Amino acid sequence: MDFVSVRYVSKKPKLSKPILIEGLPGIGNVGKLAVEHLIDTTKAKKFAELYCKDFPPQVFINTDGTVKLVNNEFYYWKAKKRNQRDLLLLTGDYQGLSSAGQYELVEKILDICEEFDVKELYTLGGYGLGHEIEKPKVLCATTDKSLVKTMKKYGAIFKKNEPGGGIVGASGLLLGLGEIRGIQGTCFMGETPGYLVDPNSAKAVLQILMKIINVKINLSALEKKAKEIEYIAHQLKEMENISKDKTEELKYIG
Amino acid sequence: MDFVSVRYVSKKPKLSKPILIEGLPGIGNVGKLAVEHLIDTTKAKKFAELYCKDFPPQVFINTDGTVKLVNNEFYYWKAKKRNQRDLLLLTGDYQGLSSAGQYELVEKILDICEEFDVKELYTLGGYGLGHEIEKPKVLCATTDKSLVKTMKKYGAIFKKNEPGGGIVGASGLLLGLGEIRGIQGTCFMGETPGYLVDPNSAKAVLQILMKIINVKINLSALEKKAKEIEYIAHQLKEMENISKDKTEELKYIG
Amino acid sequence: MDFVSVRYVSKKPKLSKPILIEGLPGIGNVGKLAVEHLIDTTKAKKFAELYCKDFPPQVFINTDGTVKLVNNEFYYWKAKKRNQRDLLLLTGDYQGLSSAGQYELVEKILDICEEFDVKELYTLGGYGLGHEIEKPKVLCATTDKSLVKTMKKYGAIFKKNEPGGGIVGASGLLLGLGEIRGIQGTCFMGETPGYLVDPNSAKAVLQILMKIINVKINLSALEKKAKEIEYIAHQLKEMENISKDKTEELKYIG
Amino acid sequence: MDFVSVRYVSKKPKLSKPILIEGLPGIGNVGKLAVEHLIDTTKAKKFAELYCKDFPPQVFINTDGTVKLVNNEFYYWKAKKRNQRDLLLLTGDYQGLSSAGQYELVEKILDICEEFDVKELYTLGGYGLGHEIEKPKVLCATTDKSLVKTMKKYGAIFKKNEPGGGIVGASGLLLGLGEIRGIQGTCFMGETPGYLVDPNSAKAVLQILMKIINVKINLSALEKKAKEIEYIAHQLKEMENISKDKTEELKYIG
Repeated sequence: MDFVSVRYVSKKPKLSKPILIEGLPGIGNVGKLAVEHLIDTTKAKKFAELYCKDFPPQVFINTDGTVKLVNNEFYYWKAKKRNQRDLLLLTGDYQGLSSAGQYELVEKILDICEEFDVKELYTLGGYGLGHEIEKPKVLCATTDKSLVKTMKKYGAIFKKNEPGGGIVGASGLLLGLGEIRGIQGTCFMGETPGYLVDPNSAKAVLQILMKIINVKINLSALEKKAKEIEYIAHQLKEMENISKDKTEELKYIG
Repeated sequence: MDFVSVRYVSKKPKLSKPILIEGLPGIGNVGKLAVEHLIDTTKAKKFAELYCKDFPPQVFINTDGTVKLVNNEFYYWKAKKRNQRDLLLLTGDYQGLSSAGQYELVEKILDICEEFDVKELYTLGGYGLGHEIEKPKVLCATTDKSLVKTMKKYGAIFKKNEPGGGIVGASGLLLGLGEIRGIQGTCFMGETPGYLVDPNSAKAVLQILMKIINVKINLSALEKKAKEIEYIAHQLKEMENISKDKTEELKYIG
Repeated sequence: MDFVSVRYVSKKPKLSKPILIEGLPGIGNVGKLAVEHLIDTTKAKKFAELYCKDFPPQVFINTDGTVKLVNNEFYYWKAKKRNQRDLLLLTGDYQGLSSAGQYELVEKILDICEEFDVKELYTLGGYGLGHEIEKPKVLCATTDKSLVKTMKKYGAIFKKNEPGGGIVGASGLLLGLGEIRGIQGTCFMGETPGYLVDPNSAKAVLQILMKIINVKINLSALEKKAKEIEYIAHQLKEMENISKDKTEELKYIG
Repeated sequence: MDFVSVRYVSKKPKLSKPILIEGLPGIGNVGKLAVEHLIDTTKAKKFAELYCKDFPPQVFINTDGTVKLVNNEFYYWKAKKRNQRDLLLLTGDYQGLSSAGQYELVEKILDICEEFDVKELYTLGGYGLGHEIEKPKVLCATTDKSLVKTMKKYGAIFKKNEPGGGIVGASGLLLGLGEIRGIQGTCFMGETPGYLVDPNSAKAVLQILMKIINVKINLSALEKKAKEIEYIAHQLKEMENISKDKTEELKYIG
């Protein structure tokens, strides 16, 4: 097994200059939620798995008692209409644990992209604000100045010096290393408090992406998940308040 | 020396499609205790040592004043009866220290398995509960759905979403990476408080394994060890109680 | 992509035995500030970028919304007068994160130096004192005893046993590994409190370097930056004093 | 540059089955002090330097203002009498930082040993007790049972289960990996409090080693250093006592 190894689980699909859309675990799990939702609603098909020595040495246990070695997975979706494009979708359990591992993994992903003649890619992630948000905006960064105007048109926001720390991980590297290989890249970062998984931010990201790929996606499942998370967040807050009250009560008694 | 290197300490045994049984250090040392007991009682023979640059740079000191470079060790046992199978037994001082090291080591173990035409493997470990247990159950996970029913029959438990974190380390990787090579794998995890080494949990694991490999194993040595540990645990608890009492006494006086 | 990879962004310049001047991030960012100022004022031209798997997996976001993969960059400047020498200038976003990565990166930098027939190099950095400094001195260390006298003449200081911990990072390795390849090296370390970026210390370093390379450099931009930092430092201090006063007030009341 | 690279600084000496004696930094710096003293008093000659990417990326600054890349160094000494043997002496600034690095480095050292036909090696180190010692004993461990009796005769101590953690680092690995190559190895560990460098413990180790290599070594320089350290230790203790007294005084007043 190489440092990163690819295992095709079905015949390699024939695609015409597909667009890559990446969403791996990260802050608020925004990117992963978005791409997983895209896979579910478009019924995209898995065709390859990536194993990497820089992932944790771990298997997950499926509900039926079988195991699954942690990995990244490639799905594809074939265009149905004239104004659509074939899609490559990438999600997974982990990003590389080390710096070098992240580079190796992204290089391998780009190798596969080149095999499929990918010329355009989108990476999805979260932008953690550390406070609650009424309606998440979607920040953007691209490899090409010409794309900035386009992305603004679709509703993405460009803020000077934000995110201040740039983009760390696969979502950043796919842009940086992809550019060297002549692949145009755009990163969408949904604003998120960053405390819990954030389906609401994933929805905001998908609303912009939908316009670009001309695919209508039913977002109701994400909205349902968002309500569940909202409920959990509400309960956590209440529990906190109760314990605060108790502390004050105790102070009063004491 | 390669990253992992094998050193045969006796002639390579001729075995017929042996079963691999692995037990390396881990929570409660359940797997290691179980395999070491299996080696002792069956008088299995050591034939190979594995050295790895991802083990600590360390030698242990034997009771006779000589040193032993930390390693993993392969033993074999030849079937005595018709309903038995040849066994490969793997135990050792350490697992790999890093993620990549764990992958490398398990790949090497699987290379050796393939040389011996291993088609079936069992990995033994502990499942830490963080509280005391009356009678440890044995949780299970497998590479094949068809094995689930079989293992239940032998008394192993399948709990949905447990262990929640999956299986980390060699016991998990041997299943995950073994499956890719077409080796059927099953992991038995004995419940354990996880505070001390747990011969009682190792015994529970072996009681199930015995039925699978059709080898009767005298478990009395493990039971004796379990009583010793119980005694130590009891003493540790009493010491704790005494110090608690003293603290309260002091409070009363003060 | 190799562990370190070079990407030429313009035609490889023809230089005559150039001098390498290195300034990468470090304490007080002294070296980086100095080399960046040198690049700006001499209008040196970028010709190569170094990418390294030991840099963080990160892109920065430019003010126009495009991204930049973190790297190290080579610039060149051609001598204008008889008593000048061609220059190679090296700066960047990061040093290698790991020990081995630092060695790999510096070896690659020295490979490029050898391609250009570099026989002489200067590394610039800071020397953190942990207290405020009226006028920063510039400490020095070299690969050749014969250079010590020369550097003293230019105003550099040699203090026995200082820095006590030697020189860590690229500024040190370029000297140590360069010497093995027969390249003469000198390191200038500007004294700095080490709390904030220190343009004042960078200025002190450049004042000595200017005499060696016979290039007049307008230092006013650095002086302006130094005043800005001084102002920030002053404000930070005042804020600290206010919070101290408040604490004392509270103590008095309480 | 390889992960570990050797640089011969003089012609490779012709030696007859030399004995290797290793003393690298470690607890109480016992091994390094002992081998450095051996080099100084026998006037052994340096012939090779080892550089390693797993050493810190660092140069030290010599008293004359020049730099020295951190390394390990080989010295040799030729036998003067019939009952003596040629010696290879190894000391240095660091051991490898990582597990894998330690293995790589020791493998390289053993490669060089094999070039010189080394059949016997001694590794010197400290054994930290965490309390003061009247007269340090020298613990021992060997690769061969037959050596145990011999080493006892020379005054070395074998204690069952001590050191409990075995021997970590180059002193252990040289025995463990050397044994695989058929080199007999013995480790001497001088007891030491482990707080400060311990010339007294180094002396105890050398007193045993002298009998084995039949070389008379003047130990007065080590004794002088030991007195200096004793004085420093005494002063540190007094300072501690003073501050204790002051604390009590303050308690009394308050």
